[in-house]
Amino acid sequence: MSGQPQAKKRSAAAAPPVIALDAMGGDNAPGEVVKGAVLAVREHGLRPVLIGRSPEVNALLAQEDATGLIPVVHAEDALAMHEGALTSWRRPRSSVAMACKLIRQGDASALVSAGSTGGVVATSTVRLRTQPGVLRAALAVVLPTHPRPTILLDAGANADAKPEMLVQFAHLGAAYAQTAHGVAAPRVGILTIGAEPGKGNRLARKASELLTATSAEAGTPPLDFRGNIEGHDLLAGEVDVVVTDGFTGNVALKSVEGAVRFAFEAVTDALTSSRIAKAGALLQRRSLRELRTRLDSETYGGAVLLGLNGTVVIAHGSSSANGIARACLLAHELAGGRIVEQVRRRLGATTRPAGWLHRLSQSDE
Amino acid sequence: MSGQPQAKKRSAAAAPPVIALDAMGGDNAPGEVVKGAVLAVREHGLRPVLIGRSPEVNALLAQEDATGLIPVVHAEDALAMHEGALTSWRRPRSSVAMACKLIRQGDASALVSAGSTGGVVATSTVRLRTQPGVLRAALAVVLPTHPRPTILLDAGANADAKPEMLVQFAHLGAAYAQTAHGVAAPRVGILTIGAEPGKGNRLARKASELLTATSAEAGTPPLDFRGNIEGHDLLAGEVDVVVTDGFTGNVALKSVEGAVRFAFEAVTDALTSSRIAKAGALLQRRSLRELRTRLDSETYGGAVLLGLNGTVVIAHGSSSANGIARACLLAHELAGGRIVEQVRRRLGATTRPAGWLHRLSQSDE
Repeated sequence: MSGQPQAKKRSAAAAPPVIALDAMGGDNAPGEVVKGAVLAVREHGLRPVLIGRSPEVNALLAQEDATGLIPVVHAEDALAMHEGALTSWRRPRSSVAMACKLIRQGDASALVSAGSTGGVVATSTVRLRTQPGVLRAALAVVLPTHPRPTILLDAGANADAKPEMLVQFAHLGAAYAQTAHGVAAPRVGILTIGAEPGKGNRLARKASELLTATSAEAGTPPLDFRGNIEGHDLLAGEVDVVVTDGFTGNVALKSVEGAVRFAFEAVTDALTSSRIAKAGALLQRRSLRELRTRLDSETYGGAVLLGLNGTVVIAHGSSSANGIARACLLAHELAGGRIVEQVRRRLGATTRPAGWLHRLSQSDE
Repeated sequence: MSGQPQAKKRSAAAAPPVIALDAMGGDNAPGEVVKGAVLAVREHGLRPVLIGRSPEVNALLAQEDATGLIPVVHAEDALAMHEGALTSWRRPRSSVAMACKLIRQGDASALVSAGSTGGVVATSTVRLRTQPGVLRAALAVVLPTHPRPTILLDAGANADAKPEMLVQFAHLGAAYAQTAHGVAAPRVGILTIGAEPGKGNRLARKASELLTATSAEAGTPPLDFRGNIEGHDLLAGEVDVVVTDGFTGNVALKSVEGAVRFAFEAVTDALTSSRIAKAGALLQRRSLRELRTRLDSETYGGAVLLGLNGTVVIAHGSSSANGIARACLLAHELAGGRIVEQVRRRLGATTRPAGWLHRLSQSDE
């Protein structure tokens, strides 16, 4: 079952992976995206290709003294930020669809877009398709825990999930932790309610049973399943990967974001509520600014859609040039670390003949 | 269907409701509970009865110079903090079970306990039973939003819920908002992912449809359903009641609590990370302390289990005397405001003959 030689199918191992960068996606596109691409080349030595309306993109490159620095692929259409999943399917000439085409042709390894999450997820899922053996692609986000970041998935790609999907999400997240964070044996937890085994709703209880069984299984990269994680431990950094369905994951992620913002506003109010406190706040401005930067999720490059035939990074819609460059860096690390092949080794149908998980996935399709 | 006269079945309308206070529940029991009971009498004029091991409780009352101030009902057994739902059912002589007995006999209107949530929920659900027409009791918590607090339910009593239960939770929450927060026409939202109608998992989508239909229905106190609430809007104060299943609600609540704690720790670190910042922090100590108090959920008295034949308030396990007194005050307001009868008017089987929701609930039982 395991122990097959490392996959050696891809040839261009030495050259850095080409990143198809959606020039038209995001609140600040195309301006900040083009600046971010230039940063990605000049500061990080990456290989982006800009996909979008070429006259606009070329003019912006000229402004940055970067004409010819980055290849531009023309796409006449673009997904609007408010566009949902359905509309995007009908837009074969959108910059995101064109970027997927580059990946399918083997001309790029990764897609980076700051476009609407729903639109990018739908378009790339349809156009790149899930890897063989993968039931569903999952959206992974990184929580700013210490000492190591924690990966939460699914953060919203699958509102209704089945227990066996959560087992696959564990493998997808483990591959991400290994590739992007260098974790040799990622610890995996399941988001649920209550600390003891057997707690949670039907989905979490069943998924927990399957994860325990998978953990004990020999062969294929094993999982180090650590059991239940409650909401208040999401930021405790106790595990490297937390799996859940896309509904719960999205609610939890947004609850965390909202609560952090709420607490910051409350602190800022408290720090400026009296004259004496105001004087103190001046002294601390720098500390607070550094902290805000640390908690800013843009620092982590964005969400990653795992399980497709190609690396997909979705940067925050409000990304600045720095945020775009960081998203490119994350895409570079994941594609360069061959995450698609790592997932194939973990979940590829051919490597898991007649396993119970494979049977389950067949019955689902 | 509506418009029947106000319920006048209870007689002792003038006297304040008697509160059966579990002396043995909580990390600081019985010491802080007894002190809290004394506070409740002396500062708020409430009518608690202490249920627990009477020699211990009486000795503590004597220490507070309060011998004879508060009736004591002996209970030889107590639920341990770590005890779950199943164990608690088998403990008919526990202080929580004895408190429920007082309510069933009509000798008390409300139960207050700082014991383990699982144990109190299980014991009171079995011993007080759900009100006629109520499918399931739901645990409601109050989020510290502005200008008015937001009630979130279910926060964990029902890990697996059905759409029609969420509709009932909306009525339970609305009755709570009317009674405790004086909101004449509570606005109700559903916790889900995505802002547009039709977003979410199967449960949330179906519940949303039913809530929209209920909102439009004439008769019985109507619901002002305002649609979808996302995780980051939980603390935005846009609605008075947010409904969800107990799994999602518990994850969201704990994610918020964990994130607020995380943000506070990060701010404290930042404020003391350099000498100059430390000097500033001294100036602001008082502002931050006040803020912490405001965000401290103990201020709100605890969680309320709604839908049973009696008012049940579950205080934080770590409650101090002040927290216990506030929980008693909340129980006093809810019982004095006849929340049980308000729920009966909203959901009682006899007041909703042949309604679609009633049919749904029958098929569920």
